[in-house]
Amino acid sequence: MKALYYDGKGMVYREDMPVPKPEKGQSLIKIIIADICSTDKEILKGYRPDFRGIMGHEFVGEVVESENKELIGKTVVGEMNQGCGKCLYCRTGREKHCPERRVIGMSKDGCFAEYMTLADHLIHPIPESLSPEKAVFTEPLAAAQEIPTQIHIDPSLNAAVIGDGRLGFMIAQVLALTGVDLTIIGRHEEKLEMFRPFAKTVLSSKYSEDRMYSVEDCFEYVIDATGKADGIRLALKIVRKMGTIVLKSTYSGETALDLCLIPVNEITVVGSRCGPFPPAIKLLSEGKVSFPPVEIFDLSEYEKAFASTAFKAGFRF
Amino acid sequence: MKALYYDGKGMVYREDMPVPKPEKGQSLIKIIIADICSTDKEILKGYRPDFRGIMGHEFVGEVVESENKELIGKTVVGEMNQGCGKCLYCRTGREKHCPERRVIGMSKDGCFAEYMTLADHLIHPIPESLSPEKAVFTEPLAAAQEIPTQIHIDPSLNAAVIGDGRLGFMIAQVLALTGVDLTIIGRHEEKLEMFRPFAKTVLSSKYSEDRMYSVEDCFEYVIDATGKADGIRLALKIVRKMGTIVLKSTYSGETALDLCLIPVNEITVVGSRCGPFPPAIKLLSEGKVSFPPVEIFDLSEYEKAFASTAFKAGFRF
Repeated sequence: MKALYYDGKGMVYREDMPVPKPEKGQSLIKIIIADICSTDKEILKGYRPDFRGIMGHEFVGEVVESENKELIGKTVVGEMNQGCGKCLYCRTGREKHCPERRVIGMSKDGCFAEYMTLADHLIHPIPESLSPEKAVFTEPLAAAQEIPTQIHIDPSLNAAVIGDGRLGFMIAQVLALTGVDLTIIGRHEEKLEMFRPFAKTVLSSKYSEDRMYSVEDCFEYVIDATGKADGIRLALKIVRKMGTIVLKSTYSGETALDLCLIPVNEITVVGSRCGPFPPAIKLLSEGKVSFPPVEIFDLSEYEKAFASTAFKAGFRF
Repeated sequence: MKALYYDGKGMVYREDMPVPKPEKGQSLIKIIIADICSTDKEILKGYRPDFRGIMGHEFVGEVVESENKELIGKTVVGEMNQGCGKCLYCRTGREKHCPERRVIGMSKDGCFAEYMTLADHLIHPIPESLSPEKAVFTEPLAAAQEIPTQIHIDPSLNAAVIGDGRLGFMIAQVLALTGVDLTIIGRHEEKLEMFRPFAKTVLSSKYSEDRMYSVEDCFEYVIDATGKADGIRLALKIVRKMGTIVLKSTYSGETALDLCLIPVNEITVVGSRCGPFPPAIKLLSEGKVSFPPVEIFDLSEYEKAFASTAFKAGFRF
């Protein structure tokens, strides 16, 4: 079968990969659409030096082989982290943090291929009314919906999202649905345009780390979706005392911070990563959120796809 | 009256200070016992360069003058932060974070004096059964009890307090009352002795920042009461994924941290400061917590008192 293989140095397009055989408790999925996440680009920069295998973890596919007969023929999406099933994390609803977990496209063959295997309990059928082109946003939308699983958003208060990229757009749409007074702080006038239908938008230049902000200029909830260390520094300046910062940004290396601001101002900082699939499928199915169309490529055009500046780029099989 | 006055350079013992006159809504309190907090020592190192006035914020006293007749003659303790009463923080239960607040012993005359004034709503009468020697622990105990106002401690899980000092001892006693499986990580064998009746104790050398910890060695809740930047670094290593770190330590300057650990491991970091007086008075009155006796000095012996290595040192008037 065709696949994009990571060989430890870079990505290789291959047509000679064998169709994988599902293990016990796994299904075989024929991939319909798979899209590129920024994590895939990080892998190419060396984020997973020990990984050798097929890349990709965001997909929509059809189950073609399974012990679970109810899954066969269903159009599905799937979660990426498969735990050991035995450790404390697996036993307490934290499978995605299992130290022995296998992660599709990162430590187990992924979805940039015609076929992929996945554990049945990680597979979620989608309604027929939801097109694959839309369903492919389940995984990134779930990451945004992780926020309301972690903190209570009081809709009578205010929130700011720092970062006008893709992740910021997902998060902003989820927060907007609560009715909270929402502000987006971004660097790009043209990207901020997308947020205007449901949020106030502000250029980052208005908020700088150098000045102090009055109570009126501060936010109860601040979400850092910048992907940069600047994000938390600004967040600590513009969050209300006893307010909450959600950290979505991951970047390598150490960052110097005045940590004393956290206890003195009694700030809560919540780290946030992957989220729950069922509510994401629900919001997508009901049309409560929407995203620009995925730019579609053939798998052999992987270089063009990875270089695309579209909101999302992906492959159709 | 006698008082310890901070003149911007150091502490001066004076006997010529006028007895203060209460403003509208304030009472006049005759101090019985006042004790020294580490913040007082920080002031002497320059923590409040603009402050000029009488130091001290932990006290027990008797109300001798008040518009509120019910307070007169009562033995009382009192909170330190008096807000403007009008801003968003004052209106939403966050008076201690009011940007215009006056803080006794830091921006308003404090309790290292024979008399002090305080806003009535910050004054809490104590039961007759509670001795002033014990009641003087209300403020530091309340700071420990701030933790369960902020996070839910599930008693079926485990917790670690890093730091075997005074604050660690208060926090450990509060956590122990929940029944949680409690470990204290400290540097001093002799100080750890105090914690043995209600917690497991471990020397810090067993936990170092250099190694990785298995799930079994990690804690759902980690409280940093070290007063040093090392505290959060170790906390990030030994907290469970999706667990909670409470930061009590304040120190000046920036600290370099691998912040990525927070989102990747979905850690929640909660900054924690002053806490609620009523539950602290309750626990002290009921004898549910206990502390070594305060070492008592005359106000004129302030140099000896500030140099004391006792658990707590204070002044009796």
